[in-house]
Parts: sequence; structure tokens; C-alpha cells
Amino acid sequence: MAKEKKQPRPKAETPKGFRDYFGAEVEDRRAMLDTIAGVYHRYGFDALESSGVETVEALGKFLPDVDRPNEGVFAWQDEDEQWMALRYDLTAPLARVYAQHRNDLPTPYRRYAMGPVWRNEKPGPGRFRQFYQCDADTVGTASMAADAEICALLSDALEAVGIPRGDYVVRVNNRKVLNGVLEQAAKVIPYPEGDNRRQTIEAAWSEVTRDAILRTIDKFDKVGEAGVRELLGKGRLDASGAYIDGVGLEAAQAEPVIRFLTSKGADNAETLANLLGAVGESETGKAGVAELGEIADLLAAQGYGPDRIVIDPSVVRGLGYYTGPVFEAELTFEILDEKGRPRQFGSVAGGGRYDDLVARFTGQTVPAVGMSIGVDRLLAALRAKGRLDRSAGGPVVVTVMDRDRMADYQAMVAELRNSGIRAEVYLGNPKNFGNQMKYADRRNSPIAVIEGGDEKERGVVQLKDLILGAQIAENATLEEWKERPSQVEVSRASLVDEVRKMLASQSENDA
Amino acid sequence: MAKEKKQPRPKAETPKGFRDYFGAEVEDRRAMLDTIAGVYHRYGFDALESSGVETVEALGKFLPDVDRPNEGVFAWQDEDEQWMALRYDLTAPLARVYAQHRNDLPTPYRRYAMGPVWRNEKPGPGRFRQFYQCDADTVGTASMAADAEICALLSDALEAVGIPRGDYVVRVNNRKVLNGVLEQAAKVIPYPEGDNRRQTIEAAWSEVTRDAILRTIDKFDKVGEAGVRELLGKGRLDASGAYIDGVGLEAAQAEPVIRFLTSKGADNAETLANLLGAVGESETGKAGVAELGEIADLLAAQGYGPDRIVIDPSVVRGLGYYTGPVFEAELTFEILDEKGRPRQFGSVAGGGRYDDLVARFTGQTVPAVGMSIGVDRLLAALRAKGRLDRSAGGPVVVTVMDRDRMADYQAMVAELRNSGIRAEVYLGNPKNFGNQMKYADRRNSPIAVIEGGDEKERGVVQLKDLILGAQIAENATLEEWKERPSQVEVSRASLVDEVRKMLASQSENDA
Repeated sequence: MAKEKKQPRPKAETPKGFRDYFGAEVEDRRAMLDTIAGVYHRYGFDALESSGVETVEALGKFLPDVDRPNEGVFAWQDEDEQWMALRYDLTAPLARVYAQHRNDLPTPYRRYAMGPVWRNEKPGPGRFRQFYQCDADTVGTASMAADAEICALLSDALEAVGIPRGDYVVRVNNRKVLNGVLEQAAKVIPYPEGDNRRQTIEAAWSEVTRDAILRTIDKFDKVGEAGVRELLGKGRLDASGAYIDGVGLEAAQAEPVIRFLTSKGADNAETLANLLGAVGESETGKAGVAELGEIADLLAAQGYGPDRIVIDPSVVRGLGYYTGPVFEAELTFEILDEKGRPRQFGSVAGGGRYDDLVARFTGQTVPAVGMSIGVDRLLAALRAKGRLDRSAGGPVVVTVMDRDRMADYQAMVAELRNSGIRAEVYLGNPKNFGNQMKYADRRNSPIAVIEGGDEKERGVVQLKDLILGAQIAENATLEEWKERPSQVEVSRASLVDEVRKMLASQSENDA
Repeated sequence: MAKEKKQPRPKAETPKGFRDYFGAEVEDRRAMLDTIAGVYHRYGFDALESSGVETVEALGKFLPDVDRPNEGVFAWQDEDEQWMALRYDLTAPLARVYAQHRNDLPTPYRRYAMGPVWRNEKPGPGRFRQFYQCDADTVGTASMAADAEICALLSDALEAVGIPRGDYVVRVNNRKVLNGVLEQAAKVIPYPEGDNRRQTIEAAWSEVTRDAILRTIDKFDKVGEAGVRELLGKGRLDASGAYIDGVGLEAAQAEPVIRFLTSKGADNAETLANLLGAVGESETGKAGVAELGEIADLLAAQGYGPDRIVIDPSVVRGLGYYTGPVFEAELTFEILDEKGRPRQFGSVAGGGRYDDLVARFTGQTVPAVGMSIGVDRLLAALRAKGRLDRSAGGPVVVTVMDRDRMADYQAMVAELRNSGIRAEVYLGNPKNFGNQMKYADRRNSPIAVIEGGDEKERGVVQLKDLILGAQIAENATLEEWKERPSQVEVSRASLVDEVRKMLASQSENDA
């Protein structure tokens, strides 16, 4: 203690890239997580909560080959020299948990998990170093029924939290189809038999080329078909005037890729037919198209048509990471950005099939498929659409007119609370009544209860309708003001009933 | 990737002192936190969620005076050399948040927070390095009404989560009373005027003596009145045969302390009178007794009598830490320990007044009072009493008799889920029906749905009542078995209704 006094005062600041959440922000998120958990549960998914801390060894991706393996994660050394880290997602812990407990878990294992994850990245606007993930995964089955189920689950979860049908779409693509397309493209040799350049081409179709094509495909959203054509070929002058080198494919080689990206038809059947054309003779590609067909059929049988879930080869996010089907949920309505311009809200969830989850630990390949909902983005979307009711939250405030009668005032709040009404007594310095009203205002309070000595004697209390009061203060005429007095006197005995009545009339007027 | 192969396989293990929570463990905790949040909200407390990470500077207690300030906390150095750490409780972050945002927060500020905290301590049985806290605090008022409110809140929260009145008690004590007792004890000079030893005694009544007395008081629970008497005096032979040196007080000096510890009377009035005797002329002590009286009066006015909240000077936990009133909630029923012996369950929540929360940051003293509920202990108590229903959780399992008709089976689960019934289709290898039944058993499934080719043709499905089946397998006679067949055939069209009927009959039999 004595030592602390000599130190300068610490700064009261959140660490860089972290933030605090207050009141409705916290409660809205909790309500959303509870709703999603309810849907996950209904689908037979079991909750799993692992701790925020894992060994760096178990997290995998960040094996310590330097002094501090903190690239991307927050890591530190335990007292026995072991490196530990905060989890950066919920999938790596699932892999560890499944490998550790697999003998006690059902096969397949459907699990959901929700909670904060941490990234040691440069923070930016709207980008924080701690945020929530909310995942559902099925481990231990290669059946496309699991993939279809994840899509249906995602669709149901979105509707449950308040995104109506038509305001979102779940798009499905497949990495295997892309692989088939790449195989197909590699076979296109744009030179006749005997031409020397044939060999150069075949040799040049390397891992590097594949990666370059993948990166180009990722830009399809931004640059469109013509742009991708240029980038797969010689290159492209981008908007800033810089010249971006292309992959260097001949037009005929690029063609399967373009065909893949633009194969979305009027319905799933047409899309699948187009994709089959794009993959040509590739067995992998054909298997991928078949998987998409199976998913579409399974979903149709459950009533999930293309108005909710649709095969869409233009989904390219995650194609590099996943090994089979890939899903993305997008909100299709427009919101206004910070400059008031309308823009598509975009992606709020995604997932796919990844079949090497547990192999790191056990050497055994275990097929798995899953998805993650970005709850913070979803909350932002609902807020932007005015679909989160943040006004109804303030407590009834019982004011203190006589500080010696605190027991009376606390008895009032107890009555209100016991009837399920959010209420509090003013606990600041009660001397200045104006301060109590300012406090009620800051608390977003719907009603102030007032009981001075005179009221006490007569067995009454005053109820001040603060919402009506605010409306009147803003725009009522004198007549309206007389007609709808914002303060009423009621008997002390009927306090709870009268408060309830006033709250009901407020929410009616609000509706 | 190539590099990873050369490494030995990582171990699939939770880091030492951490654990995973599965299924009902997670859902029960979430339900409890939601219920408690509901009570906090009703009392006008606002949610606050800060991140798990704070700067070590803001956490305070663990300022870096060595290379790694990791005593008690998990800490690491940021890329710009700043030390960060995982929060070890929810109070230190509250202090930082209040200091940082105080101009935007109401005064007083009632806030609640729930979430994991981390302790870098030696793990032990039942002691984990990550666990949940669930706090409510009121910052910015010295009014005893705030303290009384926290006690009422604690009482209501316990009842809301399923601890009936009579099974718990909230005990209240006050650090000021203890301080008064110590002042009083210091004034007792067991030697006549003129005796040389008087001066020695006065000089000897130092900080050291106070701390030694505090530590001795902490042992009251264990050693009782006689034991404390010995420990305040010359010392005591403990159960192991070791001699524990005493504080060295004369009997007359120890008397006020003993009087304090044993002053609990038949009711609050008697207890307060006894305490007043114990503090004698000490102004601090008298103020403390007056505070306890005020709290008791305020609570009585709200209907919280001593059957729920009682003044109890034998509460000594936290007396060293807090500056005014101290609360502790104890469960009064017995449970069986791991060896089958009955024992009191004990403390599940605690709190008190601490008036130097924000001063570290701003130099300004801000009065505050709060409490923390140990949700994991509470859950353990409810589990021990059989008050958590963990059986009702399993999903209806739709079995797969014909793997080509997966779409049919998924349509069935979709119908069930859309009717709010937890259901899943078996996604493992369907070849062996026995495995499907084993899976259903492991999933705690109440009903298996079976539709083979024959059933399909006839437009029916079989419903297997797995709970009844298990009962019959265990102990039914042949007659009972005939009377209550555990498998029934119903029309495919009535699937949802029949499943619902069977679930209802199961929960009836269960009740």
C-alpha cells in the first residue's frame, strides 16, 4: 500500500483493441445467444464450454518456433515453462476436446459452443481483439445429411433471432467443384500436338498457379467477371491506377474457372447442370456437384427451398479453407452506412466441411462440418433495422422526498419488484429534487413515484409519466396537455396496479 | 504443414487447472445466470460486460515490480511492451470502468456483471483456474439503503434459482464494529495507574497486534470461543499436537473481542444491544452498530425478516477486506460429502462495503457496496439436492432404416423440430441397427422413431418408448410388459402428435 502511493496513478483505460459493453448491448446479446442456443438444442446439438485458455501445443496453428509464439494469439509461459494461449476460435478447442474425450462422446457428436475468442491483431474500426463466436458442428460423419442439417439450422437460427424469411439467404458452394474446375483447367492445353510450349504449360501448372487462381477467385465479388478474366490472364489496371499482374493463363485455360464462377442458373437444377459442364471429366468435380445435388434434395424434402438456401457458385469465401461444401449466410436488405449511403449488409455467418479436424492429435481422419454465426454483426443488423427494442429498459424510480423515510420508499420498490416491475429507489443525495429527475432521465425511467409528507398523510402517491411528459414537453398543445396530464395522484395501496396500468398505456402508445 | 509432420503429435489435454463443461452442465449454468440477471435487472441494476483482458496497471494489485508480474494472474507483454493480464475478478474491472466512464454513468451506478475470471493459482480438487463470477455492485453512494438493497437482492436471487426460504440465510456483520471493538480492547489497561507496564502495553498495541487479532478472529469458525480465547492469550495446542503461539493479550484485553464474536442474541435487537456493549465508548464502533440497525430496519420495512437476513457478528470472512457492512449467504441444509457423511453446504455468496474503489485512478474516494454469487457452488448445491432436472434433455432420435431415404427421415425431424420438439436423425453408419439404439441410449433419447420399407408402404412409423423400455427391462413382470408395450405403431401423418403424447406420458410417470 505504502509502495503504491509513490507510483503515478494508473490510467483508467481499456487495453487497446478491447471495449466495454453496457446495459442493453449486453442484454440484447445474451438474449440472442439464448435464442440461438435454443435452436441448436432443438436440433439435438449439445452444449460444450471449454475454457478460454488452451496450451499453444493444442491450438496447433501457432506452434512455438520462436521465443514467443504470439503471432495472432495472446500467449504466455506457464510457471512450468509450458506455453499457454487464449483461444482464437471455437473450432481448435473442439478438435482438442473431441480427441481428448472421444470415447465418452456419441458418434457423430453434434455440439454447439458460444463465447468470447481473442485475436492478437491490429485493432481497427469495428474490429476488436475480443469478440463472440457462436458455433455448431457435427463431428464424425461424412454424410451430406449433416451438411444439409447445418444449412437448415443456420436458416432457422436467423429467423429465430428476428431476420424474416426473404431478408436473408444461405448460399452453398463446394470446394470439390472448384478443385474439379482447376483439374479441368489444367488439362486445357491451348497449343496443338507437337507444339513445344505444351510441356512448359504442364510443368507450370503448379501449386503456385493454383494458389494464384484461388486468390483471384476471391476477388470475384469485387472485380466481377471481366476483372477475373483479366486477372487470370495478363493482368489488370485497378481503380487506383496500379497495374496488377495476372496469373498468366491463356483464355482457354481460364474458361472453366469463369464458367464455374458464373454458373448460377434460374434454379438449383440449372446451376447444377452448369457446374457439371464446368468440371468436365474431373471425378472430384463430379463428386462435388453430386454432393451439392444431394444437399439441395435433402433440404427440399424438409421444405427449405431456394428462397432460404440456394446453390451459388459465386460463394468463394472459405473455399481455400474448407474441403467440401461451404456455406455463407447473407442479409439481403440494405442499411445506411455511416455516410447515409445505402449498402448491402452482407455476410453474418459461414461454415463448411473440414475433414482433418482431429488428425493432428490422433492420426485418425475424422470428418466434420460446422458453422459460425457472427452475433455481433447480427446484432448490428437488427439494430440498424430498428428491430431491437432498446427503449423499454429503464426502471421505475421511487424518489426520496424525506430522507428519514427511506424505509417507506424501499418498501415501495420491494412491492414493485415483487410484482415483476423493474424499480429502484433513488440512492444519491436527495436534497435537490431536480437531480433526482435528471437521474430518472439518465436511467431512461418510464415513471417516477413521489411521496412527500403531504402525500404520506393523505395515503396517496404521485405517479409522473416521464415518457408522456417528454412527449408533451416536445410537441403538445395546451389542450392536449390538459387532456393528458402526465402526473396523476393514486392511492398508496394501489401503487402496483396503477404503475402497471401506466406502463401498459405507455407501451400501447409506443406501438 | 510439411513442418508439422516432423513434430510429435500434440497432446489432447486441457491445460492444468482448466476443464471442459458438457451439455446440461453448460445449460444449467446459463439458465442460472439468466435467472440471476433477471433479478438484478428487476432491481434496476444495469448489465456491464468488460473484456477478459485488462492492462496490469489497471488491475492494480499486481503492479510489475519483477520481470513478470504474474503472481496470481495470467499476464503477458503486448507488442508495445505493455503488460496485459486476464482479470482475476469483476470488481477490479468495475473500478477501471467507473473511473473511465464516470461522466456518462448515472450516480449512483448500479451495475451487474457475470462471466469467467482467471486465477494463476495452484489448482486443487474442485479448484479451477477459470470460474464464473456473478456480481452486483452499487457505486457512488454511502447510504445504508444501498447495503440493505444488496442483501435483499441476494436473498431474492437465491430464491429465484431454487433455494427455498429457510434453506439459506444471509448474515450481516460490520467491519466498523470490529474496529470499534479493537479500539475498545486497546484501551483496556490491565494494570493500575503508576504501573510501569502500562506504557509497554500501549506501545505494543500496534498494527501487528491488530493483524494478529484479525487472523485469530478468522479462526473462530474452526476453534470456537475457548480456542479464540487461548489464541488471543498465550497460545494453544492444536489438534495435530503443535503449539500455536498466541497474540499475547491479557484476558481483560481479549474480552471485548470475545464479547463481539459471541454477541448474537435471540433477535436483531438483542444482538445490536450486545454489540453496543462490546464497542463501549468507541465512536467508530457505535457508528457501525448504528449502520447495522439501519440495515435491519430498512430490510424489515421491505418484509425481509431474520428468517432471511440476520445480523450475525460471527461472520468474519471478508472483515479484513471490506470497510463497512459485510454479508455472507450460507445454505443451511446438509448434503452428503464424497464419503457419504452429512455436512453443512456452507457459503455460496458474499460481499460488503469497500469505499476506496476508484481512488487509485482518480484520487477521489467513491463509496461502493456489492456482492458476488458463486454460481458453480450454487449449481453444485442444487445438484446435490436433486433440484436440477438433468434427465429431460435427450433428443428424439429418428433412425435410418434405408440410407437412400435420408430425405424422408430428415423431413420427419424437421416436422418435430418445427413443433418445438428436440429431435435428430441418426447420422452415423446406419448398417447396424443395434448401433443406432446404442447411440440413442448414449444420447439419453426418450423416443426412437423407426420407418422401414414396410412401414413406409403402409404409411406408418414405429415409436419406441426408450424410457418405458428401460424401466421394463429393469423390473417389469410379463403382465406389465404386455399391458404397457414400449413400442407402438402410429400413422406417419400423426407423427408429431403421437410423439408429443408419448413425451407427455413420460414426464407424467416421471413426476
